[in-house]
Amino acid sequence: MKRYLPVLAVLILLGADLCLAQTDQPTIKEDFQPSTLNQPGQEYPQVNSQGYARFRIAAPQAQSVSVNLGGRGGTPLKKSDDGAWTGTTAAPLDEGFHYYHLSVDGGTFNDPGTLNFYGSVRWESGIEIPAHDREFYALKDVPHGRVQQILFPSKSTGTSRRAFVYTPPDYDKNSTKRYPVLYLQHGWGEDETAWSTQGHANLIMDNLIAEGKTKPFLIVMTYGMTNDAKFGTIGSFNIAPFETVLVNELIPYIDANFRTLSDQPHRAMAGLSMGGMETKTITLKHLDVFSHIGLLSGGTISPEDVKNTPGFEKKAKLVFVSFGSRELGGNRGGGRGGFGGDPKANADALKQAGINNVFYVSPDTAHEFQSWRRSLRELAPLLFKD
Amino acid sequence: MKRYLPVLAVLILLGADLCLAQTDQPTIKEDFQPSTLNQPGQEYPQVNSQGYARFRIAAPQAQSVSVNLGGRGGTPLKKSDDGAWTGTTAAPLDEGFHYYHLSVDGGTFNDPGTLNFYGSVRWESGIEIPAHDREFYALKDVPHGRVQQILFPSKSTGTSRRAFVYTPPDYDKNSTKRYPVLYLQHGWGEDETAWSTQGHANLIMDNLIAEGKTKPFLIVMTYGMTNDAKFGTIGSFNIAPFETVLVNELIPYIDANFRTLSDQPHRAMAGLSMGGMETKTITLKHLDVFSHIGLLSGGTISPEDVKNTPGFEKKAKLVFVSFGSRELGGNRGGGRGGFGGDPKANADALKQAGINNVFYVSPDTAHEFQSWRRSLRELAPLLFKD
Repeated sequence: MKRYLPVLAVLILLGADLCLAQTDQPTIKEDFQPSTLNQPGQEYPQVNSQGYARFRIAAPQAQSVSVNLGGRGGTPLKKSDDGAWTGTTAAPLDEGFHYYHLSVDGGTFNDPGTLNFYGSVRWESGIEIPAHDREFYALKDVPHGRVQQILFPSKSTGTSRRAFVYTPPDYDKNSTKRYPVLYLQHGWGEDETAWSTQGHANLIMDNLIAEGKTKPFLIVMTYGMTNDAKFGTIGSFNIAPFETVLVNELIPYIDANFRTLSDQPHRAMAGLSMGGMETKTITLKHLDVFSHIGLLSGGTISPEDVKNTPGFEKKAKLVFVSFGSRELGGNRGGGRGGFGGDPKANADALKQAGINNVFYVSPDTAHEFQSWRRSLRELAPLLFKD
Repeated sequence: MKRYLPVLAVLILLGADLCLAQTDQPTIKEDFQPSTLNQPGQEYPQVNSQGYARFRIAAPQAQSVSVNLGGRGGTPLKKSDDGAWTGTTAAPLDEGFHYYHLSVDGGTFNDPGTLNFYGSVRWESGIEIPAHDREFYALKDVPHGRVQQILFPSKSTGTSRRAFVYTPPDYDKNSTKRYPVLYLQHGWGEDETAWSTQGHANLIMDNLIAEGKTKPFLIVMTYGMTNDAKFGTIGSFNIAPFETVLVNELIPYIDANFRTLSDQPHRAMAGLSMGGMETKTITLKHLDVFSHIGLLSGGTISPEDVKNTPGFEKKAKLVFVSFGSRELGGNRGGGRGGFGGDPKANADALKQAGINNVFYVSPDTAHEFQSWRRSLRELAPLLFKD
């Protein structure tokens, strides 16, 4: 696993570094509105139509308050006459979801105005910059599936573990129909709540299904143990404990307790960032279990990977690889070429070799959830085609 | 509804005031452990075997940091040499769950060490004092039901609304069996997440079912609109919008989308605090819809209520009323006698009148979730007896 080290370090650091959009905006428009992720009734933080974010924190006796948004040193806030600390980002933010937190007199706290989301191995504040394409994950008046919290027994870890299962709108209407399953992993620092909260995986599926763009299938989301001590640090992670939980415990539980199509052609795995690394490692080792592979900002499959995996061409029905455009070079991205090779070159090589292989780049987004929401929208319709 | 005003104001203020236990402990035992509600890997806050809580907040440049726990003025923290602010409560806390937040230099923030829970119309920090009877809501190696997040269409409010539905462990094993339903409401300042998070309603049911102590049934938890502007202030709340959502929209949706027994004998409603008031108002108006009534620290049913509700004796199969012992008088409780009359006297009168009526008092707890966890444990086995 050592070969992942430098690239993953870059991947995580870049992830924290890339949420400011690159456009220069000379004038800040005063059309700020409360962020859609604010707690009920909270006016701040706000975002404007250009993507600037404005913060307001009451702490009258504080000496310093700043916003740490994406690790770029943050937005220092200034004390107003009424004792509240206010400030606006120096540049517009990229569209979509961003984690952040406050620094108040040297302590790390969340913004009391917003909801919290698990990222960076803590519950962080979140802010949403309305994206031009936000309709695909909007809450609409369409039939809605469910997000079911299950607790499944895990002998290998000696506890009941939590997973969330998305079941499509028609799941409970027809008690005999069986469905394919996508196992979908979060990234480092996150947990099993990420995909159905900041990721809106359920709404993305509801909307795709309502438009007839994807087959209905189940999505199973559990904790990838990426933050556990025994998972190891980035350079030495040990996939075995999670592999056991997923393959030997969770999958049999899901197949026994949900109406699944429980064979290899109807089982997919995908993940974002470190969840993509988990996906690659586990699927290549278990191609009798999974047929569809999705790596979202989490590496690629190279011709060498194919060569080293007996039966790959026959067993793997789809390789989906995606990145945010800002991850792939340019001024800030720095490129992810080292992580299993240049992703576009690998995609082309696999296509040449006759492997069903789709490469997607999310426009103007970085190592953040807007890239992954879009990636799920692109991936879902490609899964489980007969 | 005006008659509820003084009593509800007392109820909410007392609720905030009553979480310190009344025992005097001369020496603080140094056996502190991290609270079970801490974020992964966080050492603080801690609790000891006597129920004292100890806090540690890093904020090296702050001027003042204090803990607001139950509105008693809080625990002021002192700055240590390492820049962290530490302190221990002046007295042990009651067993169970408590909301709290920090005051840092005059601003309100959450403790970055703990998970957040929706209460007081904001996401608050939470701390858990291990209760002597905590086994009944512990995560055990028993078959687990699910907590299903649904989004149901609501014409009256023009949106899809969220609810959580607990389905018992055998719900998906037998695709023809139908189940009774309990509609279970949170209190003022809380939302639909409360009962399955800080309330552990799912684990309480899993454990009761595993021990054969209760029939399996569904629990439906949605937002009671108690914090909405149009719900009104405490003195003038308007139940109509929530009554419409619950009776005309949610119940038909549940009956159409889950395998319920959809008749009056198999439908119950219960709620805590203001959710109890909602329960009383709605059930007395809709005794053709609900047969079982549970008021948890949220009023009582008086003989006059019975007299004013035609058909009550025939239609109401159970009246369950509960309180925490500290709510019922003594030094701190002040008594809740005004809220629909003295609860014990009302219970006795209803019993005299031949109405199936159970009165439960949770020992040594206040207007807090430990009272309500225990109340659900007591209520569940009484529901839907043939």
